[in-house]
Amino acid sequence: MRNVDKKDVPAVTVPRLALYLRKLRELRARGVERVSSKDLAAMIELNAAQIRKDFSYFGEFGTRGVGYGVQRLIDEISHCLGLDRSWNVVIVGAGLMGTALARYRGFGEQGFHLVGMFDRSETVIGASYGAGRVRSVAELEEFCRAEKVDIAMVTVPATEAEATIQHLAAIGVRAILNFAPVKVRTDVDVLVRQVDLSSELMSLSFYLDREQG
Amino acid sequence: MRNVDKKDVPAVTVPRLALYLRKLRELRARGVERVSSKDLAAMIELNAAQIRKDFSYFGEFGTRGVGYGVQRLIDEISHCLGLDRSWNVVIVGAGLMGTALARYRGFGEQGFHLVGMFDRSETVIGASYGAGRVRSVAELEEFCRAEKVDIAMVTVPATEAEATIQHLAAIGVRAILNFAPVKVRTDVDVLVRQVDLSSELMSLSFYLDREQG
Repeated sequence: MRNVDKKDVPAVTVPRLALYLRKLRELRARGVERVSSKDLAAMIELNAAQIRKDFSYFGEFGTRGVGYGVQRLIDEISHCLGLDRSWNVVIVGAGLMGTALARYRGFGEQGFHLVGMFDRSETVIGASYGAGRVRSVAELEEFCRAEKVDIAMVTVPATEAEATIQHLAAIGVRAILNFAPVKVRTDVDVLVRQVDLSSELMSLSFYLDREQG
Repeated sequence: MRNVDKKDVPAVTVPRLALYLRKLRELRARGVERVSSKDLAAMIELNAAQIRKDFSYFGEFGTRGVGYGVQRLIDEISHCLGLDRSWNVVIVGAGLMGTALARYRGFGEQGFHLVGMFDRSETVIGASYGAGRVRSVAELEEFCRAEKVDIAMVTVPATEAEATIQHLAAIGVRAILNFAPVKVRTDVDVLVRQVDLSSELMSLSFYLDREQG
């Protein structure tokens, strides 16, 4: 496989790569072998020039009139997104959101393997939610080192999120998906992405209320 | 309560209002009655001038040296976000993500009430996941009109998302939180916001892979 220099790929391109990948996998499942930037653009509502520019990071292998090879694009994008390997994931916080995520198995199909779940409350430690039994956060450091944990999903209460993320970073977890509804400041080198479902719902209610008001 | 003209509040401000609201509720819970824009700025990592500008939509009621009244801000922001009423929500798609969301009860605390859950598959219709029994999508129209459903969370497979959202819009649901990993084009007037957890995870793996590569 061609070695994409990922340093060339800008951050804003990454969500589009995820979008292309899904559409390309769908095309492959339907037996489609080649696709033009124009057809792909129509399918996902982006413009064809943008798509060609994004694909140019993988080398100039689109052919006018013939299009791109679907499988080759899938391979290149998967490689670029780090999806040609698997990643070990833990959930910290066995509350409502944490247990819901643990029961959801869709991430595993993408190479994200839930290997453990943690909480600080004695009342949930030992319970089982689809990721083995819930362990004490006191075991986090040893577990993360032993299991080579790459990513933590943080689903603790808002007031505990910052300390939890600082702790995870300190014990070597490099990437966090934070579901706690707070922006977290970190001194250490850890990548934090935020998922805030309540905020999305509030954006909807804001617009609905404005329409109806 | 002062009548904010919501048309004055720009869309980019809305996620910040959600952020302020959470921090202010936290302060209230700790018995704090007043807060300055400077202190609030330090707590949530925004600059004080931005916060004062955002709060100016609610009238000039901050007092230099005294700060803003926490309860008054909570009331104003809740009103602006449409949170001083409740919203009826359905989930369409009783798969992994849909059932996980149905078990999560955190939305109810914000005024978003899950009133029903729908699927098209006979194998899940009748099952129960915390939102009453799963109904057939054939009942959606009658149900949404009778229950005055405001918001639908769409958790169907990617290939069904567009048709599902078009259908919901056609029967009068005005706002959609789409968890299906596809951008959906709609001809009709419906507000769609996208939550894409897999894409967030791929952003993390992209960066991790780049670091380690």
